[in-house]
Amino acid sequence: MGCCQDCLHYVFDYETPRTLVIPHIGVGCVFRFTQILVVLYVVGYVCVVQKAYQEKDSVISSVTSKVKGFALTNVSDMEPQLWDVADYVIPPQGEGSFFVLTNMVVTPKQRQWRCPELPSPSTTCVDDCDCIVGHSDPRGSGIQTGLCVNYSSTLQTCEVFSWCPLELDTKLPERPLLAAAENFTVLIKNSITYPKFKVHRRNIMPQINSSYLKRCEFNHVTDPYCPIFRLKHIVSEAGEEFQDLAVMGGVIGIIIDWSCDLDWWAGKCKPKYTFRRLDNKHPNRNAAPGYNFRFAKYYKTSAGEETRTLIKAYGIRFDVIVFGTVRIKSVFFTNVLIRVSVLLCLC
Amino acid sequence: MGCCQDCLHYVFDYETPRTLVIPHIGVGCVFRFTQILVVLYVVGYVCVVQKAYQEKDSVISSVTSKVKGFALTNVSDMEPQLWDVADYVIPPQGEGSFFVLTNMVVTPKQRQWRCPELPSPSTTCVDDCDCIVGHSDPRGSGIQTGLCVNYSSTLQTCEVFSWCPLELDTKLPERPLLAAAENFTVLIKNSITYPKFKVHRRNIMPQINSSYLKRCEFNHVTDPYCPIFRLKHIVSEAGEEFQDLAVMGGVIGIIIDWSCDLDWWAGKCKPKYTFRRLDNKHPNRNAAPGYNFRFAKYYKTSAGEETRTLIKAYGIRFDVIVFGTVRIKSVFFTNVLIRVSVLLCLC
Amino acid sequence: MGCCQDCLHYVFDYETPRTLVIPHIGVGCVFRFTQILVVLYVVGYVCVVQKAYQEKDSVISSVTSKVKGFALTNVSDMEPQLWDVADYVIPPQGEGSFFVLTNMVVTPKQRQWRCPELPSPSTTCVDDCDCIVGHSDPRGSGIQTGLCVNYSSTLQTCEVFSWCPLELDTKLPERPLLAAAENFTVLIKNSITYPKFKVHRRNIMPQINSSYLKRCEFNHVTDPYCPIFRLKHIVSEAGEEFQDLAVMGGVIGIIIDWSCDLDWWAGKCKPKYTFRRLDNKHPNRNAAPGYNFRFAKYYKTSAGEETRTLIKAYGIRFDVIVFGTVRIKSVFFTNVLIRVSVLLCLC
Repeated sequence: MGCCQDCLHYVFDYETPRTLVIPHIGVGCVFRFTQILVVLYVVGYVCVVQKAYQEKDSVISSVTSKVKGFALTNVSDMEPQLWDVADYVIPPQGEGSFFVLTNMVVTPKQRQWRCPELPSPSTTCVDDCDCIVGHSDPRGSGIQTGLCVNYSSTLQTCEVFSWCPLELDTKLPERPLLAAAENFTVLIKNSITYPKFKVHRRNIMPQINSSYLKRCEFNHVTDPYCPIFRLKHIVSEAGEEFQDLAVMGGVIGIIIDWSCDLDWWAGKCKPKYTFRRLDNKHPNRNAAPGYNFRFAKYYKTSAGEETRTLIKAYGIRFDVIVFGTVRIKSVFFTNVLIRVSVLLCLC
Repeated sequence: MGCCQDCLHYVFDYETPRTLVIPHIGVGCVFRFTQILVVLYVVGYVCVVQKAYQEKDSVISSVTSKVKGFALTNVSDMEPQLWDVADYVIPPQGEGSFFVLTNMVVTPKQRQWRCPELPSPSTTCVDDCDCIVGHSDPRGSGIQTGLCVNYSSTLQTCEVFSWCPLELDTKLPERPLLAAAENFTVLIKNSITYPKFKVHRRNIMPQINSSYLKRCEFNHVTDPYCPIFRLKHIVSEAGEEFQDLAVMGGVIGIIIDWSCDLDWWAGKCKPKYTFRRLDNKHPNRNAAPGYNFRFAKYYKTSAGEETRTLIKAYGIRFDVIVFGTVRIKSVFFTNVLIRVSVLLCLC
Repeated sequence: MGCCQDCLHYVFDYETPRTLVIPHIGVGCVFRFTQILVVLYVVGYVCVVQKAYQEKDSVISSVTSKVKGFALTNVSDMEPQLWDVADYVIPPQGEGSFFVLTNMVVTPKQRQWRCPELPSPSTTCVDDCDCIVGHSDPRGSGIQTGLCVNYSSTLQTCEVFSWCPLELDTKLPERPLLAAAENFTVLIKNSITYPKFKVHRRNIMPQINSSYLKRCEFNHVTDPYCPIFRLKHIVSEAGEEFQDLAVMGGVIGIIIDWSCDLDWWAGKCKPKYTFRRLDNKHPNRNAAPGYNFRFAKYYKTSAGEETRTLIKAYGIRFDVIVFGTVRIKSVFFTNVLIRVSVLLCLC
């Protein structure tokens, strides 16, 4: 029984270190000052600088886009032509990344045949001996047939088997063909989910009604939540001039920041739009300026032969990039409260 | 030598605070209770609520998809037509985001020409004075030619230069044209990597053999790891009715959650599929319901003139979204063990 | 006033625990050893193993790609044909995920008509009674017309309404048609942003000039920062043989790791390229080997009838995957310094 009481004493006796009190103002000041530093560190560094109170969650996002507008091209070597959404938006599906055609080099009526190679030091020739049958130059356009033919009245080049006539992409229009594209508008629909917090949001917010959507246009100041953007506005917000960018093309990021504050007193979770050019702005310092790609429309003649219209498309690719973090401060403050009380208990 | 011994004493003497033992049950109880609170806090809050033991790593994912099935359309104003994968899956590449066509408005034989504008308050006219040459209304369909022509026997509208005849997208079929799409199936292949932990996994797991893959179909209960999904099942799991959704289109997320538990006693890392509608469910409250886009097929007549068939495609876009976290508890427990022993040593 | 002085004393007196010094070498050694363990734990475990000093930020990335090269196909049942970028890169847009066609099964001149089904146990028939009008077998190719017709001189199958003639995808060329694709090159442009640290980087670095870009080719040892990759090199770095992979297709990941070290004495932030096969390498164990999809080119005959060329495209999809973390050690060391001083102050 004495043992049991010993045990009980061991468990429930309170041990506290004996302390020595030094009634010296200087030492005390230093002591309190360090304590204040600690508190400042916790509040200032952890909370403000490191933002350690953020509960983070990765965002799941879905984007659809729909461009509106049309443009007329009327240049000397082509018929006047009207371009609508089905013509200039590639791919047509309206995903988070869409391309608007603004300039192009069109090579119509190509077919598999023989034609003289474009002139360059390695393709010019004097007679057939300079051309090798079956040779394919990686920088050339096709398989050499072994003949040396007239490219122009003064120049001879090796003949190649390829899609003929060959594309001559040096004569890119200096003024973008679809200069009117700056007035096209795009409707961007974005819905997000934070799976951990079961938060679902859409950029077309409940208070936005049908009549507002029909007339609104995004503007940082007047209409920060309108999901309809004028292409010219996007490009100028990214610090670029639309007509300059449209000549050689480029990539523009439409960045949607969903930084949610989910506390009961805040409860707001709204999209914030920013715009940035994503490719290299200075083409001179760099060998690969702008943004372009080649695609073809395939036709069959009545004789059954396949022909194509090759289009080297220059334009602006818009990448919708969605990111965000969730903050719950109330959870954090509870957390801090518990930690502080724990610390006090330990001391 | 005395100095050295002093030094040695300074380094190897053990200092411990003198303590005062208070044999008072009440104070002791309070003391132990606070200690228990601390332990509960560490175990309960840190481990269970915050899940601080998760070692996190971002997942690298690759998705391919392959839809199977065909459908026959047999409506009054079109020839009977069979639709197979190459016709209704856009883009055809089978990436993580694919679109299945379910309804459409087809405008065949469009060519660059002149035709009366669709009637609206801004396009109706009485005589040529109401139409301005070269004017292009952003809500219209083309460039006005300045003429006022008959749209119908009772109505006159301004003539425009555009792809003619103009699309009349108000007569969308009320029953989806490709209603049979609900029985299409899709095979989704997904492979993931956690680069930090060098973990590679595929959703077609090693135990799944060829004969099972030929006959299985995903079901949460009976076949939770079968990678073949019936479109109707996906849509109904997302809480929607396929035939309703197919009329105006929509976006469905196929969410694959790879939450891996990499401990030696668990070692499991299996995909979990959930489905969610990602676009707005309530089209009435909102001006932009459903999911559709326009694309065109281009033809050339024997005279060399370009014509196109414009298709306003309504359908369901499926976005495969992959996310996941890795948990290694054993690492965590080692960690906690070390921390606790460190704390004990410090005290 | 006495009360105030008491208060002052309470605030500014310094309390320190009385300690007992035990001049015992053994106990002292144990004490110091534990202290060393603590220090080792902090430095070794926290810093080295857990890398707790990483300040993390999610990367925002934009990728464009441009493939170069052409190939000649010259097989018995087709005209000799030259394939260039517009023909074999699908989609043509040059995004982060691009597909290079290497092999194919072409079914030209398909039209909506009637033809005998491909022979299989469920489609062979003896007379018309075996075929049901309007029946559509999910594993078949179209809607049965109810007739039993000759498939070959020895075999009868049910007639179906479909795109006829039907595709016969069993005769896939054993040697890839576009075997020359191994020498194609791709230029990958990647720009990244760490929004939290306002860091922007491009994989075409400022020191790379135009003349270097024209001749360089990526190699881990000699040209680790050249953004031009030979397809064969990518595939072999991923541990595969190009000619084998090209037959049935596959998915290759081009992984760009941006691990930035932003300290003033380091200040480096360079891309690191690795390559990995993302789909299943062992087709025998698995029912769904390789990577392929079907697409069609649509034509109109002079009579206005729509025909198409169906292409079952086998090839390699390249997925550019970008990830990265930012490290700022200087911030961390400041942090550790503060924490350690705080700890000392508390003790």
